[in-house]
Amino acid sequence: MADKKKNGGYIIIAGCGRLGANLANTLSNIGENVIIIDKNQDAFRKLSPSFGGITTAGDATEIAVLKNAEIEKATAVISLTNNDNTNIMVAELAKKMFNIGQVIARLYDPECECVYQEFGIETICPAVLSMKEIDKLLPAISLGALETEGER
Amino acid sequence: MADKKKNGGYIIIAGCGRLGANLANTLSNIGENVIIIDKNQDAFRKLSPSFGGITTAGDATEIAVLKNAEIEKATAVISLTNNDNTNIMVAELAKKMFNIGQVIARLYDPECECVYQEFGIETICPAVLSMKEIDKLLPAISLGALETEGER
Repeated sequence: MADKKKNGGYIIIAGCGRLGANLANTLSNIGENVIIIDKNQDAFRKLSPSFGGITTAGDATEIAVLKNAEIEKATAVISLTNNDNTNIMVAELAKKMFNIGQVIARLYDPECECVYQEFGIETICPAVLSMKEIDKLLPAISLGALETEGER
Repeated sequence: MADKKKNGGYIIIAGCGRLGANLANTLSNIGENVIIIDKNQDAFRKLSPSFGGITTAGDATEIAVLKNAEIEKATAVISLTNNDNTNIMVAELAKKMFNIGQVIARLYDPECECVYQEFGIETICPAVLSMKEIDKLLPAISLGALETEGER
């Protein structure tokens, strides 16, 4: 596997859903080295034919899978599976066990967001991003409260 | 129903999922009049106890449901169901049949986005927003291509 990687480090993406595949394709297109992990081999069909990275079928919450992807050499780990708990676990492993500098997790539940930012894990929350975008699109209304408004 | 509305017009939200409920709560908290429509009565449990708007159980793609919500008096229609086709249909009805000034649809498939913006329908695409956010979080990497990179 190592011979396929350039020297400049690489980015591990967990989850080859719509966002994971799109990000992997984009990163690959701009010349970044990408390893994408998904439990389901079929998920890799979402990658474009020009995708030049590595695909790994496996559970990214398993240390053996991460080690096999040589996580210790990664510059960034981005967990984008459809499961918040999986994304949290992958991000925590990457940050605490492997000391990865840049760790990003997608969290559907906005409640979790603040907690993980304290651990040096960046989070992206589609619901919060969508609220901010709607705020921009409704010029007559200011949704000032939205950034602190998690789902109860 | 009309007596519950203030004179300043109101906002119709279709879909009481995580985002729809959060937006409805936020708009209601800042004093906006909100009508939220969902096929499933149970979905309204996501609304906060302080929600001061109106809930309507029904299919927002049905003209009768929209008319019952007095859509012709709405200042904005925001369709946030989990189904792109539903959101497109609601947005088109709002724009073309009822001439609503501000129409927003959530679309999971980024492919659709450009098409509907041409019809005066604003779209929000969580995958595109998430890509932009990841771009911001990865300072060493510029995902310049991401805005035009839809899912293939």
